[in-house]
Amino acid sequence: MNDNTLAAQHQARAQAILDQMTLDEKLAQIVGFWDKGDGEAVAPLQGEFQEATTFTGATRHGLGHITRAYGTRPVDPIERAAWLWNEQRRIIKETRLGIPMLVHEECLTGLSAWKAATFPTPLSWGASFNPELVEKMGSLIGESMRTLGIHQGLAPVLDVIRDPRWGRVEECISEDPYAVSVIGTSYVKGVQSQGVHATLKHFVGYSASQSGRNFGPVHAGKREIADVLLPPFEMAIRDGGVRSVMHAYSEIDGVPVAASAEYLTDLLRNQWEFDGVVVADYFGVAFLEKLHQVAENLEDAAGQALEAGVDIELPTGDAYLTPLRQGVEAGRIDESLVDRAVLRALTQKAELGLLDNTFEDEPPSQIDLDSPEHRAVARQLAEEAVVLLSNDGTLPVAASPSKIAVIGPNADRISAMFGCYSFVNHVLAVQEGYDTGIDVPTMREAISEEFTDAIVNYAEGCDIESDDTSRFDHAAEIASDSDLTILVLGDQAGLFGRGTVGEGCDRDDLELPGVQRQLAERVLATGRPVVIVLLTGRPYVLGWALDQASAVVQAFFPGEEGAQAVAGVLSGRVNPSGKLPVSLPRSTGAQPYTYLHPRLGGDSDVTNLSSQPVRPFGFGLSYTTFTYSDLTVSATSTDAPVGVSVVVTNTGDRDGDEVVQLYVQDVFGSITRPVAQLMGFQRVSLAPGQSATVTFTVPPHRLSFTNAQYTRVVEPGQFVFWTGHSAGSGDISATVTVTGDVYEVAPNATLTTSVSVEYR
Amino acid sequence: MNDNTLAAQHQARAQAILDQMTLDEKLAQIVGFWDKGDGEAVAPLQGEFQEATTFTGATRHGLGHITRAYGTRPVDPIERAAWLWNEQRRIIKETRLGIPMLVHEECLTGLSAWKAATFPTPLSWGASFNPELVEKMGSLIGESMRTLGIHQGLAPVLDVIRDPRWGRVEECISEDPYAVSVIGTSYVKGVQSQGVHATLKHFVGYSASQSGRNFGPVHAGKREIADVLLPPFEMAIRDGGVRSVMHAYSEIDGVPVAASAEYLTDLLRNQWEFDGVVVADYFGVAFLEKLHQVAENLEDAAGQALEAGVDIELPTGDAYLTPLRQGVEAGRIDESLVDRAVLRALTQKAELGLLDNTFEDEPPSQIDLDSPEHRAVARQLAEEAVVLLSNDGTLPVAASPSKIAVIGPNADRISAMFGCYSFVNHVLAVQEGYDTGIDVPTMREAISEEFTDAIVNYAEGCDIESDDTSRFDHAAEIASDSDLTILVLGDQAGLFGRGTVGEGCDRDDLELPGVQRQLAERVLATGRPVVIVLLTGRPYVLGWALDQASAVVQAFFPGEEGAQAVAGVLSGRVNPSGKLPVSLPRSTGAQPYTYLHPRLGGDSDVTNLSSQPVRPFGFGLSYTTFTYSDLTVSATSTDAPVGVSVVVTNTGDRDGDEVVQLYVQDVFGSITRPVAQLMGFQRVSLAPGQSATVTFTVPPHRLSFTNAQYTRVVEPGQFVFWTGHSAGSGDISATVTVTGDVYEVAPNATLTTSVSVEYR
Repeated sequence: MNDNTLAAQHQARAQAILDQMTLDEKLAQIVGFWDKGDGEAVAPLQGEFQEATTFTGATRHGLGHITRAYGTRPVDPIERAAWLWNEQRRIIKETRLGIPMLVHEECLTGLSAWKAATFPTPLSWGASFNPELVEKMGSLIGESMRTLGIHQGLAPVLDVIRDPRWGRVEECISEDPYAVSVIGTSYVKGVQSQGVHATLKHFVGYSASQSGRNFGPVHAGKREIADVLLPPFEMAIRDGGVRSVMHAYSEIDGVPVAASAEYLTDLLRNQWEFDGVVVADYFGVAFLEKLHQVAENLEDAAGQALEAGVDIELPTGDAYLTPLRQGVEAGRIDESLVDRAVLRALTQKAELGLLDNTFEDEPPSQIDLDSPEHRAVARQLAEEAVVLLSNDGTLPVAASPSKIAVIGPNADRISAMFGCYSFVNHVLAVQEGYDTGIDVPTMREAISEEFTDAIVNYAEGCDIESDDTSRFDHAAEIASDSDLTILVLGDQAGLFGRGTVGEGCDRDDLELPGVQRQLAERVLATGRPVVIVLLTGRPYVLGWALDQASAVVQAFFPGEEGAQAVAGVLSGRVNPSGKLPVSLPRSTGAQPYTYLHPRLGGDSDVTNLSSQPVRPFGFGLSYTTFTYSDLTVSATSTDAPVGVSVVVTNTGDRDGDEVVQLYVQDVFGSITRPVAQLMGFQRVSLAPGQSATVTFTVPPHRLSFTNAQYTRVVEPGQFVFWTGHSAGSGDISATVTVTGDVYEVAPNATLTTSVSVEYR
Repeated sequence: MNDNTLAAQHQARAQAILDQMTLDEKLAQIVGFWDKGDGEAVAPLQGEFQEATTFTGATRHGLGHITRAYGTRPVDPIERAAWLWNEQRRIIKETRLGIPMLVHEECLTGLSAWKAATFPTPLSWGASFNPELVEKMGSLIGESMRTLGIHQGLAPVLDVIRDPRWGRVEECISEDPYAVSVIGTSYVKGVQSQGVHATLKHFVGYSASQSGRNFGPVHAGKREIADVLLPPFEMAIRDGGVRSVMHAYSEIDGVPVAASAEYLTDLLRNQWEFDGVVVADYFGVAFLEKLHQVAENLEDAAGQALEAGVDIELPTGDAYLTPLRQGVEAGRIDESLVDRAVLRALTQKAELGLLDNTFEDEPPSQIDLDSPEHRAVARQLAEEAVVLLSNDGTLPVAASPSKIAVIGPNADRISAMFGCYSFVNHVLAVQEGYDTGIDVPTMREAISEEFTDAIVNYAEGCDIESDDTSRFDHAAEIASDSDLTILVLGDQAGLFGRGTVGEGCDRDDLELPGVQRQLAERVLATGRPVVIVLLTGRPYVLGWALDQASAVVQAFFPGEEGAQAVAGVLSGRVNPSGKLPVSLPRSTGAQPYTYLHPRLGGDSDVTNLSSQPVRPFGFGLSYTTFTYSDLTVSATSTDAPVGVSVVVTNTGDRDGDEVVQLYVQDVFGSITRPVAQLMGFQRVSLAPGQSATVTFTVPPHRLSFTNAQYTRVVEPGQFVFWTGHSAGSGDISATVTVTGDVYEVAPNATLTTSVSVEYR
């Protein structure tokens, strides 16, 4: 049976159920219920919304989603699964139609459950430029979810980074839309390979908020939305087959996406033919009234969201169910809109096999959510994501130093390894002091283990964020007394102001938080070799560190195996190969800035200021060297792929990985064109002296853009292709003329640059 | 004869000439020639464009514009006029058709000619909230131009301020579109009342460039453009009858305005029925190729600009004439496009009476470009524009202090009084050390004159921009030794990096330039009373000064009479009444920010950061107090005006002016609505105890916005109106419900809130 027939069967089955439903039964299917427990705020304005009813009350007529069954308290997953199976059986038995609940959970950096593996955060996926590995991680996450009876995961985040001030940059993959597309789609494929539905966040615009403020208005035209912010969603839908999409909280040019039929229906369903389910970001429907003020009241908000194409209000129906019911009963909201959403919700349950599941099987009685396989993937991803920003030769540490000083507020904290979407299994655990149930070495521990012959002295030096400099003296003393200082600085991820990065933790200033820079300068003033390691959720202003430190290592939040990965880079056990997924900013005042800008978005003779980052997108050093040669580019016409091949050779004396990056500049276009645009990338592993020929086939879609008539076209003309170590370095380039008519890209055009590698 | 008949006659006359013209003669009419002399860079990339010919060569077939005949070198205006008359006679005689040249000049803050009056810069016009006075200034400027044979002035700048980092903020009026509209239109009316054409700059988008970088891409949707950036242009065209518009250098969402028929033709001509001339910003056509890279070559650039609706390429035809001729001759550019532009150019010359002018009259043999009338207007405008930001009672200076310290890099510099568009008559003169020919006291001189009984000691303290702190000790000494210190800080206006504000002088950081804050903190540390006076071209981050100084006075660039105006405020001779035309920013990292934002563009519970300015738009203290009472609001339906009246009373003990500000919040709308929007304003002068009833009639257009279908509508619902001292203070408010259908605003709707005042 092919997919289309199957989909039709699921829908027919859903329709048959819908036809029997009362209004109450329908409404129950398009909301969630959240047993939030002690009310730890993990969603915006969570405190304003209180469940009006008990779980039993909420499930009287069935229930669409059970919200976050595992992830906000340290409950044993086995116990929780038993409870869940029991509740599913109860609902099957006690409700008229006996439809089980869909269970959703957060899973951005691993399943958000106690004792579950926590992988590196998305900036590390971006830095790895390794979609295959991300897919493998996704499948492990999906497998854990499936085993625990979770049907839908609220990840990945496909917001393209536009401003590092925004706190949720730490949940994002890259500032390049193509890297986000490919890596994000891999995550989706991984999760969904296990029969669990992934959810794309946040459709669309959220990352481009004014001055990086969470929920701030998005100032963007339709071309910028189409060419920069939408592509990851298109690929994850068309190539990734994702089954769910979450709307963004944002407004774009005055229109909140949650109320936009243009985005949620015309584009998503009519143009892209998405046939899954659109879920609300938590309380997003109510926010149409409470925050955006585009709705007169909650009924109006519900009606607008439903009409635009939001199918399921999450996390609860608290501010939705009653107003919606009143609107429908009074004839102010068309019941057919409810039916449309319910049909989608039930079709999803049919797809997931939920309509046939009796839950008579036993829930899992033992489970390892952090198996050796999880650890291996977490380790490899962490290793491939460490970005060496500068190095005067101090790294790798040559002879074993006899005394190492490990200093800094992130040097001996488990939670320094994790992003804010690890929730219960780490951030909350660490804050509240209970055992995470998994083994997470700190940098201090990993360094002690890595350099077994050395005496490791430790000083915290300062807090992540305070103005307390009282411990500087002690830190400087142990630095002076050591052969090498490793200074571990950065962020504490958190939610709503309880961290320096994360949801609701935006920054006004891109200097490192608190007095960390002053601590570093104090330690640097000892004159001893200092290596700075950054565990951060965003790129910071680090020009001073690059100028003064012996080496600077950017590791973002590297996950449960991250400390060993970084320690391995320091010792040389691991040859660094991560590449910046974000430009390293020159200054706060240069924001917003990303590398994907037209000529006048960068440096020019018409402004006195430079916007150039201190390290460009794609940058990262290795302990070996790579050279590029034999670039060939062949192009025929605007409607045909461009072929590019290049030879990359390891010309150093160590094994190493290089991320070969292919960029293009469309020399001129009818719309201003970016000075550089990533066309493809490929990680290759080369022994000393070894070469590989990397061949890219760039489909026309990749060269296209949205023209003045808002059509996606490839225009004939000159294109400069180059490969190299970063967006800022054209190691080798070739100009090619693409001839032919202006080509309107077909709706089902190939979105991906295919790459092959031939090792020699 | 009515205007329409006259316009038809001018056009018919132009057509008759056009019909006889050769291609060379046509092309000559749509370009300028610029005898730039020594090449002092006053336009972007000016050095890259060199006249390919001499003036004689350029005028062989006639000439459209002579560019900046008076304004870039210290040439005596009388001599220059004699030269100009002579050249006009020569061209009439020597060219086949004998059409005189149109002479254009800069005139933003007064005519840019040696010895001409220099008025306060536009931020001061904005701070005065006095359109009538600006109109009077405009008429004086227009009169000077007319006398000198100048036909068109390249002002006003109607860019609505969006980001204070941008250097050209100093040429702008306000961050509120309505204030820009009304004050800008007044300027136009003033200039044009003298038979001289004004030119609206820069149509449109320029001020919203990415991170405030000059020429940076504009990220804005069509609604933001329509509701925020376009209104001033619409009013100046429809109500002001402006005769010329200059395109902006910018691109909006990828489309450079110079190549946009959507803006330059569809909107400007078809929708707004503008029938004047569109001029290029200097080299703007060539920049389509050189900077925006949307044109393959200069011919393509010329063709695109002409087709979009640019009529005249300025300042020269250097990079335009030959490519355009080649394109037309080869049939690649339609000659009818040339004809369209020439027809407009000749029609303008007909309107200006140029086609009948034989220049047989004598040029002016004596002229006072800085008459007592100029001085009086310059003085009044400067006085009404001084904004008192904070005051602990130190001001007005009570008893005459015996010793006053006047300190700071702007305390004794003439050019501190002027913006960068004063060009030759001041900025260049001061830089190059020749006599400006007009009397401009510095702050030091004005303070000595104001406080005749006091000993005034002076120290520069530091430079405007350097890291030299060597003179701090001396400054602190004289401050310690004085009863009062007046610290005069701020900017040096300049062009292309030669200043701290002005064209091509953007800021990465909104702290005062150089070590000025450190100087202030050093002087403040003396513990003596310190009043800080700011002569700046943008709002800076001043929270620290507001916290620490006895008083802070913001004067922008107050013009030739500015020092006496500020000194008058210090002594109490002048009661300050200026109001901030821009929000005083909290931080660099909070940018971009203006007060005109939806709820989620300001502070909210979903971000940890505050964006609130430290002083809101419209803020300014007085030496007396005003109270508001008896607010009444009457509304009928969406298609009818709203009537508002309020009583304002001087409840203090001094005469004073209050700018009564009326704001509205549309409680909810189909598109997110700003939390505050200026609906009207009125300056009133009140004696102690005196009251005035201010009555506003707000036409429907003022309550309208661009909806989801890109239609301008008024929606029924609740509106909260309030009046008060600033956008941040609702002294008194009333909520009114406007009923009726959604009202589509007519194309010729009234744009202006009418205001009447009844003194009691």
